[in-house]
Amino acid sequence: MVTQRHKVLFEPSGQRGWVDDGRTIMEAARDLGVDLQSLCGGKGICGKCMVAIEDQTSILPPAGTDVDMVSQMDQQEQSYFEKHPFPPEYRLSCLAKIHEDIVVRIPEESCTSGQLVFKPIRGLSVELFPAVEKHDLSLPSLGDSESNWDRIRLFLSEQIHLHDVSADFRALCHSSRELSRSPRLSSTWVWMDRELIQIGMDPEVKTYGLAVDLGTTTLAAYLCDLQSGDLTATESSVNPQVVYGEDVLSRITYAMEHPDGAAVMHRSIIQGINRIIHRLAARVGFEKNSILDMCVVGNTCMHHLFLGMAPDTLGCAPFVPAVRQSLDVKARELGLEMADGAYVHFLPVVSGFVGADTIGMILAENPQKCEGNVLLIDIGTNGELVLSGHGRLLCTSCATGPALEGANIQCGMRASVGAIEKVRIDPETLKVSYKVIGEDHGHDANQDCGIRPVGICGSGIIDAIAEMFLAGVVGRNGRLIEDARSRLVRTEDGGLAFVVAGKEDTSFGRPIFISQKDVRAVQLAKGAMHAAARILMRKAGVERLDRIILAGAFGNVINPESAAVIGLFPNCGCENINSVGNAAGEGARMALLNRNRRNEADEIERKLEFVELAAFPGFDREFADAMYLPHREDAHSRTPTGYPDGGRQGENSGKQRRT
Amino acid sequence: MVTQRHKVLFEPSGQRGWVDDGRTIMEAARDLGVDLQSLCGGKGICGKCMVAIEDQTSILPPAGTDVDMVSQMDQQEQSYFEKHPFPPEYRLSCLAKIHEDIVVRIPEESCTSGQLVFKPIRGLSVELFPAVEKHDLSLPSLGDSESNWDRIRLFLSEQIHLHDVSADFRALCHSSRELSRSPRLSSTWVWMDRELIQIGMDPEVKTYGLAVDLGTTTLAAYLCDLQSGDLTATESSVNPQVVYGEDVLSRITYAMEHPDGAAVMHRSIIQGINRIIHRLAARVGFEKNSILDMCVVGNTCMHHLFLGMAPDTLGCAPFVPAVRQSLDVKARELGLEMADGAYVHFLPVVSGFVGADTIGMILAENPQKCEGNVLLIDIGTNGELVLSGHGRLLCTSCATGPALEGANIQCGMRASVGAIEKVRIDPETLKVSYKVIGEDHGHDANQDCGIRPVGICGSGIIDAIAEMFLAGVVGRNGRLIEDARSRLVRTEDGGLAFVVAGKEDTSFGRPIFISQKDVRAVQLAKGAMHAAARILMRKAGVERLDRIILAGAFGNVINPESAAVIGLFPNCGCENINSVGNAAGEGARMALLNRNRRNEADEIERKLEFVELAAFPGFDREFADAMYLPHREDAHSRTPTGYPDGGRQGENSGKQRRT
Repeated sequence: MVTQRHKVLFEPSGQRGWVDDGRTIMEAARDLGVDLQSLCGGKGICGKCMVAIEDQTSILPPAGTDVDMVSQMDQQEQSYFEKHPFPPEYRLSCLAKIHEDIVVRIPEESCTSGQLVFKPIRGLSVELFPAVEKHDLSLPSLGDSESNWDRIRLFLSEQIHLHDVSADFRALCHSSRELSRSPRLSSTWVWMDRELIQIGMDPEVKTYGLAVDLGTTTLAAYLCDLQSGDLTATESSVNPQVVYGEDVLSRITYAMEHPDGAAVMHRSIIQGINRIIHRLAARVGFEKNSILDMCVVGNTCMHHLFLGMAPDTLGCAPFVPAVRQSLDVKARELGLEMADGAYVHFLPVVSGFVGADTIGMILAENPQKCEGNVLLIDIGTNGELVLSGHGRLLCTSCATGPALEGANIQCGMRASVGAIEKVRIDPETLKVSYKVIGEDHGHDANQDCGIRPVGICGSGIIDAIAEMFLAGVVGRNGRLIEDARSRLVRTEDGGLAFVVAGKEDTSFGRPIFISQKDVRAVQLAKGAMHAAARILMRKAGVERLDRIILAGAFGNVINPESAAVIGLFPNCGCENINSVGNAAGEGARMALLNRNRRNEADEIERKLEFVELAAFPGFDREFADAMYLPHREDAHSRTPTGYPDGGRQGENSGKQRRT
Repeated sequence: MVTQRHKVLFEPSGQRGWVDDGRTIMEAARDLGVDLQSLCGGKGICGKCMVAIEDQTSILPPAGTDVDMVSQMDQQEQSYFEKHPFPPEYRLSCLAKIHEDIVVRIPEESCTSGQLVFKPIRGLSVELFPAVEKHDLSLPSLGDSESNWDRIRLFLSEQIHLHDVSADFRALCHSSRELSRSPRLSSTWVWMDRELIQIGMDPEVKTYGLAVDLGTTTLAAYLCDLQSGDLTATESSVNPQVVYGEDVLSRITYAMEHPDGAAVMHRSIIQGINRIIHRLAARVGFEKNSILDMCVVGNTCMHHLFLGMAPDTLGCAPFVPAVRQSLDVKARELGLEMADGAYVHFLPVVSGFVGADTIGMILAENPQKCEGNVLLIDIGTNGELVLSGHGRLLCTSCATGPALEGANIQCGMRASVGAIEKVRIDPETLKVSYKVIGEDHGHDANQDCGIRPVGICGSGIIDAIAEMFLAGVVGRNGRLIEDARSRLVRTEDGGLAFVVAGKEDTSFGRPIFISQKDVRAVQLAKGAMHAAARILMRKAGVERLDRIILAGAFGNVINPESAAVIGLFPNCGCENINSVGNAAGEGARMALLNRNRRNEADEIERKLEFVELAAFPGFDREFADAMYLPHREDAHSRTPTGYPDGGRQGENSGKQRRT
């Protein structure tokens, strides 16, 4: 008899894999190296391992049968929840057995250490001028034949000097009931000075806007108070579309190959945002109609899928989007659980592969207003690059694959608790030291500590490869150098690998290593990125960069020196490299809080020149060259020195100090 | 054991009543006098009695149980439908037994005679200038970074000279898929020269608009070809809201007393329109996205319920509507099954009790552009009156109750097959002759013929009371005069009644009569109508009417002379009375086919002065006076002569000839 296996996805870490039918959720978490508390040792007493089974009607294809996703509660679990009432989706992971593909959300309390907010923004200051403004209403008495709406219009025109305001028809529907109860006192919310989108009875209620960054892998949301402009709360989750493909191209393929594919992924991402809204509402305490505005960024594929547009044309040349302009769409048309009359503003996209996230990043960082030549890089599943120089604003996109985010790497994982995020290798002894996310300080591999590593995330991988190169374990061409000194091992598939953490040190009894394949994946990614940057520089006639801005969650944690060692981007001196966190999300927040920024974003879209890499003469050569690790005469000496940049270009001889 | 009883509503006649559990639909039809064929005598062989059980999820409150509304098919019925496949809602009425409240639709083929189209329009000529226009598209080749929408915009701007066209975002969604299949050839539909609402691949496909009249009792729809302007087809049905109350006030009460009442009635009327669309689609042969525009009229309560607005404020002073302006609402927001991007245009309403149907009527008949003083009357469940005279345009509304439409009358019914629609009483012998809808000629009560009467409709009631008055059976004060000659009978409740058709002549073995109560109901109705007309005349300083226009289905069949005998409206000479059919629907059709008429409707709304009857000094006195039947010296002589008009006003001495 063949045992059935089910796909399990853990949120918010995004860890996922296959488990045998009948395994408990706790066992699955252990198998997959997911951080989950347990004090009572799986007896169903402590409740520390409580998880929520996500409603996944739109996340996974319908099961077709009525079988429960997880086992019914046994007596022990029932008695626990009788004493500690929770919503019905909550289960004890040590007792609930898996019988279907499921999505499991681990609440903050059930992690051994707090979970990370994956996409921090800096919260740059922005003048408050939101698209939605509140006007408290003091209505004249009812006339004989005036309608409620006549009276509101008169008020807005005479008292607020907003003329020709139209009304969202649902707002009219609600107002008819509201005003029949209390005909005089209430508040109106007007969008862009031209449309009444809500009327409410309580002038004191707080109202919010949500800035949303739709990442291929991660959804990040920033809740802002529309009266004060404060960033009230941040939430993120895995993009539930990951089950349809890890990267943009596989999602497009899914949409093209399944008659309902785009619609399914549309519902999935909308439901993902709605779940975030529910969690924010529970944390902050508000009703869904308190969210009166939303500003969204994301790559062009996410843009299309979020709006319900077929991404088919993004999948084949000439890769044109359905629409580039910024859009204002009623939230209810998308099924978003916000105020009924609210709009969603999606920033413009530039091309099939440069999306609104790039526009948001430019809006936040304003490279075009800086002195000198500035390169702005967002490293995600795709790399987006923007170069400002010589009065031009150029952009391009390159497929880096998910390697730099820790995916498609044999021991890779996202930057969540348990991930090795920093690596150092003694060039003499090849002894490895590393730092694990969730612990305060680094530690030696042999020394036991609170958190055992579960995998290695993007910044850890770049660190590891840079250090392996410096220690002579990897050559310039990316080959692992097998000799007595390098102490390489063979992986299950027979490939060579360098062990970062031995099996005795990990939480799941297997070693964490960097394989030859992993090095190749990183080479492809960094080669694409580096070549793309050089093409932009050639196009703009820029010879030297004055500044590099690294955006995205990954850019925030990357070690610039290691990046320089492997040649992730043209050299510009480590002191000139800034990490700015999620600049795309920051841009969405700015556009949320200041409507003029939306116009600015539209202007940026018009100014921005898209450079098609494949069409650029010499790109292949650039790419092939950039696959090599940079020249380094003294690669094997581990003294604090600088590292010359990408040798073949030979334009750099500066020295940088490791910090 | 108490037998359960169920409410059964037959469409399109609107006949309804209670039947015992387990009765067949055929038996229920016989009980209620509904016209339904049967050749095989209930053996389930001929299929002539086939009916459709309407999906009533939103029509009746949910049953709460899973009990089938009608019995499962027995072997006989199954074998019939195996040989003659029909959609699952079709059943043989002689075999299907009733087990729940149901709505039964009788298809045309199952009536012994063709069913009437209840709300004919005249199809006045109107210049074709629809809001939605088609532009066949010839797109330039795909550029490198232009979006599909960029290319369409360019085409509309350069080729059609439509600048600044926006796009419905759903249309964009569809276009992304359409254009990826065939990037060059397709058609665009643009609404009001400013919004792209649909893009389609087949430039040859016919497109339609629907003019809809939402009556309290009847929904009427007129399907027009948007390219030719032709009236392609007409459909009507009972307003499914009738189960929540016969008249506007009881619907408002239902909405106020049930937390979800307005929403339930909203869904019910939308579903009613959708059913009409399905039937039209089946008859004419089109897809739902071929309907690209809709223009709607209806009284203010229907307006609110159709749009999903709470009608609460219409139920108490000062009876203000939520909104008066004309509205353009996306059809999909209302759940209408038309093209996804299509708009619904609702003509403006005037006050809580004068709706868009009145505006539509004025738009069609243009009394303000006629010479002299013109009174326009729409007699429905409410009476709406418009007076044009001395440069002013006045309107009002009066509650006539449903008596004039044959409801709330003991033997009353709608003007459908089997209804007595004309009555004549010999003033000497009191012998009654009548005409039944569905037969070609009138016949004597004693003479057998094809169609036996089922009830009496509004025009028959007015005829009957006028003839009873002329024959001396009713006095001026409305009392039935009980003497040897009048041969009155006693009804079951002990009241007096005059028999129009004896039990031996009817299809259900009981007599059809006019009772004292019925006369009172008609007096109230006609009193309200007459008084309202006189108030408008006083307000405008008009002493004499030059013309009366009767609109509405009822106005179309009323005998003007009988109306004059009972004093339904101020006298103006029968030759000056026109019946124009469903002028409100006609106005909707005009606004559908010519967008300028929409602006005209808005202007009419601004010009129209609403007169609040209750607030008008002297209304009560007017009303009390108008309750009397008009003076008539020679009421008992049945020679062909004229009849002096409403004596108390004493302004008429003209003689009219009965035609």
